[in-house]
Amino acid sequence: MKLHILGCHSATPRSVAFPSAQVLETGNELLLIDAGEGMQIQLRKYKHKFNKIKYIFISHLHGDHFYGLVGFLSTLRLIGREKEMHIFAPEGLKKLTELQFQITQTDINYPLFFHELTRTESELILDTDKFSVTTIPLKHRLYTNGFLIKEKPALRKLNIEAVKRYPEIETWAYHNLKRGKDFIREDGSRIPNDELTLPPPPVKSYAYCSDTAYNPSIIPLIKEVDLLYHEATFLEKDKHLAEKTKHSTARQAAQIAKEADVKQLVLGHFSSRYPDERIFIEEAKEIFDKVDIAQEGKMFEF
Amino acid sequence: MKLHILGCHSATPRSVAFPSAQVLETGNELLLIDAGEGMQIQLRKYKHKFNKIKYIFISHLHGDHFYGLVGFLSTLRLIGREKEMHIFAPEGLKKLTELQFQITQTDINYPLFFHELTRTESELILDTDKFSVTTIPLKHRLYTNGFLIKEKPALRKLNIEAVKRYPEIETWAYHNLKRGKDFIREDGSRIPNDELTLPPPPVKSYAYCSDTAYNPSIIPLIKEVDLLYHEATFLEKDKHLAEKTKHSTARQAAQIAKEADVKQLVLGHFSSRYPDERIFIEEAKEIFDKVDIAQEGKMFEF
Repeated sequence: MKLHILGCHSATPRSVAFPSAQVLETGNELLLIDAGEGMQIQLRKYKHKFNKIKYIFISHLHGDHFYGLVGFLSTLRLIGREKEMHIFAPEGLKKLTELQFQITQTDINYPLFFHELTRTESELILDTDKFSVTTIPLKHRLYTNGFLIKEKPALRKLNIEAVKRYPEIETWAYHNLKRGKDFIREDGSRIPNDELTLPPPPVKSYAYCSDTAYNPSIIPLIKEVDLLYHEATFLEKDKHLAEKTKHSTARQAAQIAKEADVKQLVLGHFSSRYPDERIFIEEAKEIFDKVDIAQEGKMFEF
Repeated sequence: MKLHILGCHSATPRSVAFPSAQVLETGNELLLIDAGEGMQIQLRKYKHKFNKIKYIFISHLHGDHFYGLVGFLSTLRLIGREKEMHIFAPEGLKKLTELQFQITQTDINYPLFFHELTRTESELILDTDKFSVTTIPLKHRLYTNGFLIKEKPALRKLNIEAVKRYPEIETWAYHNLKRGKDFIREDGSRIPNDELTLPPPPVKSYAYCSDTAYNPSIIPLIKEVDLLYHEATFLEKDKHLAEKTKHSTARQAAQIAKEADVKQLVLGHFSSRYPDERIFIEEAKEIFDKVDIAQEGKMFEF
């Protein structure tokens, strides 16, 4: 998986900073997670192909997480999109987007589906051959979900040396071997699969948690993920602001990462009150060592 | 007046290019004209004070001219705006913006006024001590206005040498002289104003015309303006596309500028099909010599 940060700042930017939006590359898909204003400008800047995006996930309906969506959907029409687009978002966004299309006299001529989210318990919202997406219920000032994206195991790899030892295994049998099946000879005897193949690369998982107050109830859901993006709008010295606005501090995000035993933590959604974001790392490192910060344009491969 | 281009591209940007938005500085006011997506990012980039903007003019309800508005209005709330904001825009934008505020649970706590435009004839929509704003009815695929901004004459300047020749003129009388009044002595005799003062600097005017098909009926409205911004989405070789989409070519914009005898023409709203925008100047120059092109970040002082 590759996570590419398009924007990672909270809603009061006083310097040049794009609000929340990121793309996750898994297999041949590009998943768009949140769509802050200017997101399509960022997609172009970093040369992502618009047409590779088929699924969009919106965490919650604060403007800094979705005001870039409607412009992107309109641009897709202008560039002649044909394939379908699926948007997973809290209830309300469909109505708003449809009013925008109506007022701007925009006729969306590609198949556009809204999947409106309303449940307050974790649910499986997308299940493809390659990956699944589950919601992570968060605690914020209005209905908010994080998203857990989990790859599915790829095919096993042929152990060519081992296979060659058995001339009776012809190439037409390879696909079943990759799928984990034993080889069965004409006489009914078997060669066990694990003698002929190697396990596939391990599956990866990614959890996106923004925006949220400190919420340990998500820990079982995100247990041992490869990468956790967790919001850290504030530092611990401004914890009262985090409580008031239902955001997290860097220390709290690190605490969640530690208890969930994740492999890597990325902090984001910084308030503009802090001129130097490296201090978020310092604060988090006191609790959890494998921590980095999101920055516009930064790529995380895992 | 100073015109500052924040974005000047049409709605299918394939490279990094911001859609229509610009600020006009007149006196101590900053007028925002159109508000394409990313406009607030551009305002910050070029260090414009958000609080100096009190009037916003939206030409028409295509997304590339107003999708940056709602994020800007939300940011103003977050940074504690208190003074009023007036938005002049076609009918529909108020309803849409209010739905956005409702869905995002945004409580706009500064005075926000929408002045919805519906008339198809030119009308005076704002009249202050310093300037007036009149609509310029344009021809586009949906209801569209350009805007004519005209400064009002400043006070006359005292001709100090002349004033000093009359010891009876005390300083308390200066303000009336600047306002163009004659000086009246105690015996009722007069000194004519034009003997004592010099005319104020000439008033400036600016016309914004985007988006529009070739429309000579606007010529009397924009006669002799100091600066005309006119859209030129296409070149003459693609005139059939201009006709179909109700846009103008560079040559047509130049024709309007020539017939209106404007002092300077600035072209903008370029389609992304043309890799080099200098060719717009070349085409326009065949008709009208004082022509330049809009570019992100470019400033025009006049």
